[in-house]
Amino acid sequence: MSTTAESAAPRVTLSDVAAEAGVSLATISKVLNGRPDVSPSTRARVEVLLAEHGYQRRTGATTTKAELVELVFHELDRIWSMELIDGVESVAKEQGLSVVLTVTGDRHSPGSEWLEGVLRRRPAGVVLVFSDLPPELRERLRSRAIPFVIVDPAGDPSPDVPSVGSANWSGGLAATRHLIELGHRRIAAITGPADMMCSLARLDGYRSAMNSAGLEIANEWVRFGDFHVEGGRAQAMALLDRPEHERPTAIFAGSDLQALGTLEAARSLGLTVPRDLSIVGYDDIPVSRWVSPRLTTVHQPLRQMGVEAAKLVLAAARGEDAPGTPRMDLATSLVVRDSTAPPAR
Amino acid sequence: MSTTAESAAPRVTLSDVAAEAGVSLATISKVLNGRPDVSPSTRARVEVLLAEHGYQRRTGATTTKAELVELVFHELDRIWSMELIDGVESVAKEQGLSVVLTVTGDRHSPGSEWLEGVLRRRPAGVVLVFSDLPPELRERLRSRAIPFVIVDPAGDPSPDVPSVGSANWSGGLAATRHLIELGHRRIAAITGPADMMCSLARLDGYRSAMNSAGLEIANEWVRFGDFHVEGGRAQAMALLDRPEHERPTAIFAGSDLQALGTLEAARSLGLTVPRDLSIVGYDDIPVSRWVSPRLTTVHQPLRQMGVEAAKLVLAAARGEDAPGTPRMDLATSLVVRDSTAPPAR
Repeated sequence: MSTTAESAAPRVTLSDVAAEAGVSLATISKVLNGRPDVSPSTRARVEVLLAEHGYQRRTGATTTKAELVELVFHELDRIWSMELIDGVESVAKEQGLSVVLTVTGDRHSPGSEWLEGVLRRRPAGVVLVFSDLPPELRERLRSRAIPFVIVDPAGDPSPDVPSVGSANWSGGLAATRHLIELGHRRIAAITGPADMMCSLARLDGYRSAMNSAGLEIANEWVRFGDFHVEGGRAQAMALLDRPEHERPTAIFAGSDLQALGTLEAARSLGLTVPRDLSIVGYDDIPVSRWVSPRLTTVHQPLRQMGVEAAKLVLAAARGEDAPGTPRMDLATSLVVRDSTAPPAR
Repeated sequence: MSTTAESAAPRVTLSDVAAEAGVSLATISKVLNGRPDVSPSTRARVEVLLAEHGYQRRTGATTTKAELVELVFHELDRIWSMELIDGVESVAKEQGLSVVLTVTGDRHSPGSEWLEGVLRRRPAGVVLVFSDLPPELRERLRSRAIPFVIVDPAGDPSPDVPSVGSANWSGGLAATRHLIELGHRRIAAITGPADMMCSLARLDGYRSAMNSAGLEIANEWVRFGDFHVEGGRAQAMALLDRPEHERPTAIFAGSDLQALGTLEAARSLGLTVPRDLSIVGYDDIPVSRWVSPRLTTVHQPLRQMGVEAAKLVLAAARGEDAPGTPRMDLATSLVVRDSTAPPAR
């Protein structure tokens, strides 16, 4: 969030950069403001020189008050996105700003065309729902004094990128402890894809809860799904389609959708939830209250993550820089409903 | 969408309006462009004069190319909004525009502060998710040559407002015909609130299907819910908690959430779906595929509604006016899954 970190660099004037690049001052200005009619090669040359000289626009140097906050997704996920949008929008509205929504790029970076648009629009700040940001993109936003923050429900951004996440490890721990406290001993876990940090963090929370209770984790009880219904169903079938004494009595399902799949697998095998099997989901999306039995799950504060990200970025826009690089992990909380109970045996 | 409808009015110059209002030309310009530092009373006086004289900004009179499309909701509904956003965003991106998202006002009108922001930002066009728009708001958007269209999954906007909706009546008809074709005769309907046009249209589709098949509709078989799980559950309990020969063998549940509530009611009474009761939902939201049995339902083309609305408004922005006021109702379609079957008896 430190928008003035480069101000210690030797002051360079834009005329110096123009002379060195062999272009007019007007061209430099176009590059700074993301205007068209600059050739890609000239734009690239000027950007390199600006970076080399540590160019830094002064905060508050813009003549007109920013009216926009940018919210950027790599995809509109039916489940996460709405809550995040809602959170960012509510803070923006409170502060009299409008939200520009863009879907661009892949999990790791917005598309290159996006940056020029942002430089033209000069938003108060940018909230990005990405797992990380390429260094050159961060650098350009910083040099133009456009504060940004990553909202990261899934991955683990570089330590020098301001970000808002949630406490995945604690969530996995709380889910598993709840099952242990109910008296379960044979507890399996289905987490998400192995290449997502939130999958690993939730699983580690599960392991720590099991270990501190002195409970064994059979190898086949740890499974990687896809965070969706089908992955949950398939992994749960593998766990449950075996003789009763080999079956877990409880499953930490890693996501609500995987919990739904687990519920289906149990039903298709004639098992009743929670009598024959307890299930804990993760996320607390609305559907967890609509199914029967209603899911015990771990609440993800998605809306609040949007709120905190917008507040961070708008505080930075007002020059209220937090010391260091803010990394905020919001607390998750266990919501006990009807899919968990003491084991029957 | 007719942004030039008023051009037949006698041409008035802005100087005339300024003289008549007793203000400077600069003040007129501020009002036209939604700038601040104009007193509310002056702004109101100038707006009245502009309207009286039929002021109309020429299409394409703006010096800079519009970069934004505005998408305005009265609330971010967890179910509808994401699909609509996705549709609008995809068209905007294709045409190199960004989407400004605003949540404002109530079901009938955006808040008054919203309009000034739009006049300042000068978007290419505005897509509004409202049941209607107050005439003075339409007039202001028209006079500034900002095309707009209403997306209306629920109500029925005035005939002179460009709008995109879906075929609710046909959806109700198709749902009920499917049940009749399976052999059901005792078919009940739970629709939404009585003050929403889409509730009434779906119910009328049900009535027409029943009437054309020569089937009787018992008074107590027509029920008004709230489009949510709880309303569906309560109305379904009233329909099902009676002796077998008085019970309907099928329910058209009016929405997927009401279908989930109906499913719960059936379960709590020991009835198996679809053996003892067939259920048809409406909307085809993701959860309809996640529950067991998967819901037979009517697909609402929400994303496509967003796409068509954005296309309409951007065509108008390019001056490609459709003749008359466009009202587009997209087709709904029946999706047959596992919650419907021939009646057991």
